[in-house]
Amino acid sequence: MLGAGFGGLTFCQTFSCPAAEVTLVDRQNHHLFQPLLYQVASAGLSAPEIAQPIRSILRNKRNVTVLLRNVTGFDLERREVRLDDAVLPYDYLVLALGGVTSYFGHPEWEQYAQGLKSLDDALNIRNQVLLAFEQAENSLDAAERERWMTITVVGGGATGVELAGAFAELARHVLKRDFRRIDPRQARVILLEAGPRLLQQYSPRLSAKAAARLTNLGVDVRTNVRVETIGEGFLQLAGSARMGSATIIWAAGVAANPLTQKLGAELDRAGRVRVQPDLSLPGHPEVFAIGDLALVSDKQGRSVPGVSPAAMQMARHVAGIIENELRGESSDRSSRPAFQYWDKGIMATIGRSAAVAQIGRVEISGWLAWVAWLFIHLLFLIGFRNKAAVLLQWTYSYFTYNRGSRIVTGLDGSRLAGHEPAPASGATVEQTNRKMSHVPAREQL
Amino acid sequence: MLGAGFGGLTFCQTFSCPAAEVTLVDRQNHHLFQPLLYQVASAGLSAPEIAQPIRSILRNKRNVTVLLRNVTGFDLERREVRLDDAVLPYDYLVLALGGVTSYFGHPEWEQYAQGLKSLDDALNIRNQVLLAFEQAENSLDAAERERWMTITVVGGGATGVELAGAFAELARHVLKRDFRRIDPRQARVILLEAGPRLLQQYSPRLSAKAAARLTNLGVDVRTNVRVETIGEGFLQLAGSARMGSATIIWAAGVAANPLTQKLGAELDRAGRVRVQPDLSLPGHPEVFAIGDLALVSDKQGRSVPGVSPAAMQMARHVAGIIENELRGESSDRSSRPAFQYWDKGIMATIGRSAAVAQIGRVEISGWLAWVAWLFIHLLFLIGFRNKAAVLLQWTYSYFTYNRGSRIVTGLDGSRLAGHEPAPASGATVEQTNRKMSHVPAREQL
Repeated sequence: MLGAGFGGLTFCQTFSCPAAEVTLVDRQNHHLFQPLLYQVASAGLSAPEIAQPIRSILRNKRNVTVLLRNVTGFDLERREVRLDDAVLPYDYLVLALGGVTSYFGHPEWEQYAQGLKSLDDALNIRNQVLLAFEQAENSLDAAERERWMTITVVGGGATGVELAGAFAELARHVLKRDFRRIDPRQARVILLEAGPRLLQQYSPRLSAKAAARLTNLGVDVRTNVRVETIGEGFLQLAGSARMGSATIIWAAGVAANPLTQKLGAELDRAGRVRVQPDLSLPGHPEVFAIGDLALVSDKQGRSVPGVSPAAMQMARHVAGIIENELRGESSDRSSRPAFQYWDKGIMATIGRSAAVAQIGRVEISGWLAWVAWLFIHLLFLIGFRNKAAVLLQWTYSYFTYNRGSRIVTGLDGSRLAGHEPAPASGATVEQTNRKMSHVPAREQL
Repeated sequence: MLGAGFGGLTFCQTFSCPAAEVTLVDRQNHHLFQPLLYQVASAGLSAPEIAQPIRSILRNKRNVTVLLRNVTGFDLERREVRLDDAVLPYDYLVLALGGVTSYFGHPEWEQYAQGLKSLDDALNIRNQVLLAFEQAENSLDAAERERWMTITVVGGGATGVELAGAFAELARHVLKRDFRRIDPRQARVILLEAGPRLLQQYSPRLSAKAAARLTNLGVDVRTNVRVETIGEGFLQLAGSARMGSATIIWAAGVAANPLTQKLGAELDRAGRVRVQPDLSLPGHPEVFAIGDLALVSDKQGRSVPGVSPAAMQMARHVAGIIENELRGESSDRSSRPAFQYWDKGIMATIGRSAAVAQIGRVEISGWLAWVAWLFIHLLFLIGFRNKAAVLLQWTYSYFTYNRGSRIVTGLDGSRLAGHEPAPASGATVEQTNRKMSHVPAREQL
């Protein structure tokens, strides 16, 4: 089992074959509640509030071993996964490695336009946006100030819409009285979409509602615009002048984890594996790809979207197949059931107190949709993470011996690879000298 | 006003002279509730729970301007503070720059033994300890595993005692069922103290109680030991063999911010400024040093300790002097009152449900002291930060338009100095390739 996202975790939680040993490998020590990541990026939630250590989620699954390791490749013939300094043999392999931000053939844009896929991405965005306002406060030049106070979100899908709404509110409400030289309410939030409308998976009516609501919040929504170049602090749109923007967020593209390229299987443009109806790799019935990695169609012939319910459904499907075969109930691999996707609907918030939702043919929008969104996410988050504030957390820690914040962020690969004692602080004396925060001693009443 | 710790913030909050302009400069965007920093390091609390944006604390002080800047030096004759790319003139200057970790003439130890003074320090320690257990789980060599599972805390003051207790509980209770190949309860937590006993500001009876309690928690307490060398993953104690320890925390020394060296004033060994009884610099009645920067004696001739109540009392004292002089009530600078320290007592926790406290001649320990500690810190923290869990926070954000997590961490100086658009992620495509966390798309029910 590779990857501890919604797919990988659901697999481990549903797979019930005590005789089988499951090894779960992930690059991070935490599972991330991805649907609320935009709130971490916009400073609404703290990182540990939407992440949970994989080990503690699977604590009671005694046949599951969790490894914090990098996967570097596969040897499908020898049935081995290569880790950076070890090899992991398998009988069955389930790939649930998820997606990465894709810059559509412009990898050089990555350094100027932050994507949003991990906690580190979200913390980078938060730092970037908050520091841009600080820089604007420090700047004496009007044009310069305007550039610092411009936030551009590229991509009008759900992530882009939710981010733009959250930034507009951050500037207009949260920060409004905190500065002396600038008025954060004059910050510009620009949302760029290449297609003719926002939220293209939704009905045109809901798209229009979302755009109207964003405009109302002060977001400058622009559709049918194509980004030609992104550089340090500016964008160039097709057919128009350079646009200065200190903060640029890339929410326009997702691709499957590039490790799929090492499988030797057929991939689509986004790097997804063209799997069999049972979700296995062609020619390798013992290898499955699920979640954002898998290219599979639903009954209507549309490809199953990269959303968490799809990943979870695929995980349950594969767990069922493997259980059956291990129990000897079914050894005929050609008679495996085909995966069926059950669409539960889609939903996106637009700032506070508005949302759009589409569940089959039912469409809701506005405050009612927002309440539904809040309710559903709280429900999921509470199930996912029973966390409270300091007081509650202390009470909780006291009685359960559990802790809330066991989250590693800032992992950059090299820390895991070598045998350094640990990621020791890279701070030098020079750097320490520059620290100015007042630090009183701490043993006091 | 330089520094937004307990001293700097108290000054801004108490100083009430609407005609005067106050500029508060700090390297960080947040004020830190330092007494709970050890809980962030030991994964009990998340970073935003003990930090608050300086701007939002001082939002209603309309005559206070907050600048997120580096101080690089002073020109006391011209009455100017030098920032990295600007100069700030002043009539009065209050220095509240706080302390830094001091390695007693061994700056090279810093890279191997993490200090604990800032949120970044705390997050480094947390990452280091959590990753060490992961490495132990990955390791097949017994000696190697033992090294990964050894945590050494150097320094038996309050910080060291609280950290050691928290780590012992983390290993023995929080992590105990999360691993498959190692037993975290076998982790060693070693607390080294050069002096004859822990907590030397406390009575010998309380020191003994603290040591007994720590031993009971499984901490290996060693007094009268001198550290000779610290290297990558090991310590060498005077008169004994090398000791392997993947995690080494330095809680042994604090010095004043090295910027004091640029004042041209007389300093003590720890870099503190020998101030006049009114807390001003000799020869510069318009410049004050407070908090951990100031070397000042109490009525009994003992030097005032570097604790937050002292910093806050000094801040109020200086605010009073400046107010009087600005109002013209007192222009005779030689008749300024002398600072009087009122000792409120000291207190330290030892793991969960035990603490020691010394308030004048009253000594308490054990569960009662712990309840007192909890009560006092909750009281302060609630006053400081009215934060709740996700649900509460959402409700709160909804009605107050406030947000809980506007905290910048990971600042390294260079980000503020230049005019890069922002601290763009340094991630390369190579690095992204290595990311394995499963990332389902997010617009779903």
